[in-house]
Amino acid sequence: MRGIVTGGAGFLGSHVADVLAEAGHDVTIVDLQPSAAHRTVVADLLDPSALVKAFRTAEFVCHLAAIGDVYLAAERPALAAEVNVAGTAHVCDAALHAGVTRVVYASTWEVYGTPRYQPMDEEHPCSPDHPYNITKLAGERIAHSYHHLKDLTITSLRLGTAYGTRMRPNSVFSTFIHRALAHEPITIQGTGEQGRQFTHARDIGAAFGAALAASGSGETFNTVADELVSIRQLARMVVDRIPTELAFAPGRKADVPSALVSNAKIRRVLGWEPKIAFADGLEELIASHRR
Amino acid sequence: MRGIVTGGAGFLGSHVADVLAEAGHDVTIVDLQPSAAHRTVVADLLDPSALVKAFRTAEFVCHLAAIGDVYLAAERPALAAEVNVAGTAHVCDAALHAGVTRVVYASTWEVYGTPRYQPMDEEHPCSPDHPYNITKLAGERIAHSYHHLKDLTITSLRLGTAYGTRMRPNSVFSTFIHRALAHEPITIQGTGEQGRQFTHARDIGAAFGAALAASGSGETFNTVADELVSIRQLARMVVDRIPTELAFAPGRKADVPSALVSNAKIRRVLGWEPKIAFADGLEELIASHRR
Repeated sequence: MRGIVTGGAGFLGSHVADVLAEAGHDVTIVDLQPSAAHRTVVADLLDPSALVKAFRTAEFVCHLAAIGDVYLAAERPALAAEVNVAGTAHVCDAALHAGVTRVVYASTWEVYGTPRYQPMDEEHPCSPDHPYNITKLAGERIAHSYHHLKDLTITSLRLGTAYGTRMRPNSVFSTFIHRALAHEPITIQGTGEQGRQFTHARDIGAAFGAALAASGSGETFNTVADELVSIRQLARMVVDRIPTELAFAPGRKADVPSALVSNAKIRRVLGWEPKIAFADGLEELIASHRR
Repeated sequence: MRGIVTGGAGFLGSHVADVLAEAGHDVTIVDLQPSAAHRTVVADLLDPSALVKAFRTAEFVCHLAAIGDVYLAAERPALAAEVNVAGTAHVCDAALHAGVTRVVYASTWEVYGTPRYQPMDEEHPCSPDHPYNITKLAGERIAHSYHHLKDLTITSLRLGTAYGTRMRPNSVFSTFIHRALAHEPITIQGTGEQGRQFTHARDIGAAFGAALAASGSGETFNTVADELVSIRQLARMVVDRIPTELAFAPGRKADVPSALVSNAKIRRVLGWEPKIAFADGLEELIASHRR
């Protein structure tokens, strides 16, 4: 199919675009900056007419563009609200206008907030308390309101914490590997016991492909790896591969505690499963940092 | 105290401003249009510097300005997101900047979505699916993120469906009374069995006063009347007072089904209670329409 990946010049969007293109889709990126690898329309989510123009011949839209930096979102909640909520509405408006038949929204496992039970399935209540998670959930809900009020075909993927090559330099992965390679100590903020189902960006790309291939019945799918890896384990795994020291520092206010998320529904309904073991993904990432 | 009522030129905001002024507060309205009754700063929620200027000497902000028309919100979700979510963040930013010590946010009982149990207390999960409710909940959560991330003192009131004099002409009250006075049939859309805890605008004004008087510990309070009145009952009560015919028409997509909401917490913690019986509030409204 022919379609759009918003945010496709960024870390996760670029992997989604790569995987979709490899699967035979004709992909155009819509982003604030040009993609190094794919045809790009430079456009702002807050410019509705630019979106309408960019989506003109699209059959699908994978919507990943967002304020994805949780620290920026905490500093500027209004910006996060504009881009992540109003921007998503603009994307849906433009998709409707262009006759796009399928929209896949990049949501996040962090919409759930404090677990009431674990593993959390898609029926678990959502009570996010951080501007990033709040605005991503509101964007998801706005997108789904286009499904039931306006008959736009929507699927949401609540993504695990993504990792892979081309990650932001302020990600915990980049920081740990960069410091280890420079023989500097790795600093764990807080106890390091908070765990994440780190999900490889190419596995996430495959989930977008699976969502595009399905009927798009307004469903929401947790899209997370199986393994729960703590920050402390991650640090240990980096140090095992690139010897350096470990240090500890106080936690940050925006830190999200551990929670186990179920991927049973996406396995059952879309036939997706995480394929890249965490140790393999980490090796690949370290190799890319060494180059 | 000296403070601001955003949206104070509108129906509900004007009653809140009246009640606060009667209680001795020094009230300034911030709205897109001037208030007939109170000092007004004409300013847009989406203009941060205008808000900073308007809030300069304020001690409190009661934030009611919003896209409050559910049909407009359904038609233009991006606008609802900008005003109700980003606009709320701008209000909180300006309040922080001005050193405002107390913000009271006008939320809605409609944030809960489909009831999992009834009556719904404040712990009930929120799963709104309409752009109005989605954006009001996101605005509430953004405001509360300023409480825990930035130490701004926030209280949210999840308001029942407000009624009273000066209601919008497209409200069900205005429509029913207007048609009955014109000897035209009153049309119930859908079964008319959906009930609402119609809450008088002056009772809501008193709840804002109670919230300002309390410590503002980041709490959320259902602020609803006790009585659940169905649209069919409302129509019957109007017809009892102004004889005319009743007719039925298909329901609208944006209609929200009945749900019983508990006001136990606000009674217990803030000492607020609804004082205006529904029949009395309706008589007052009919009298104002007759004039």
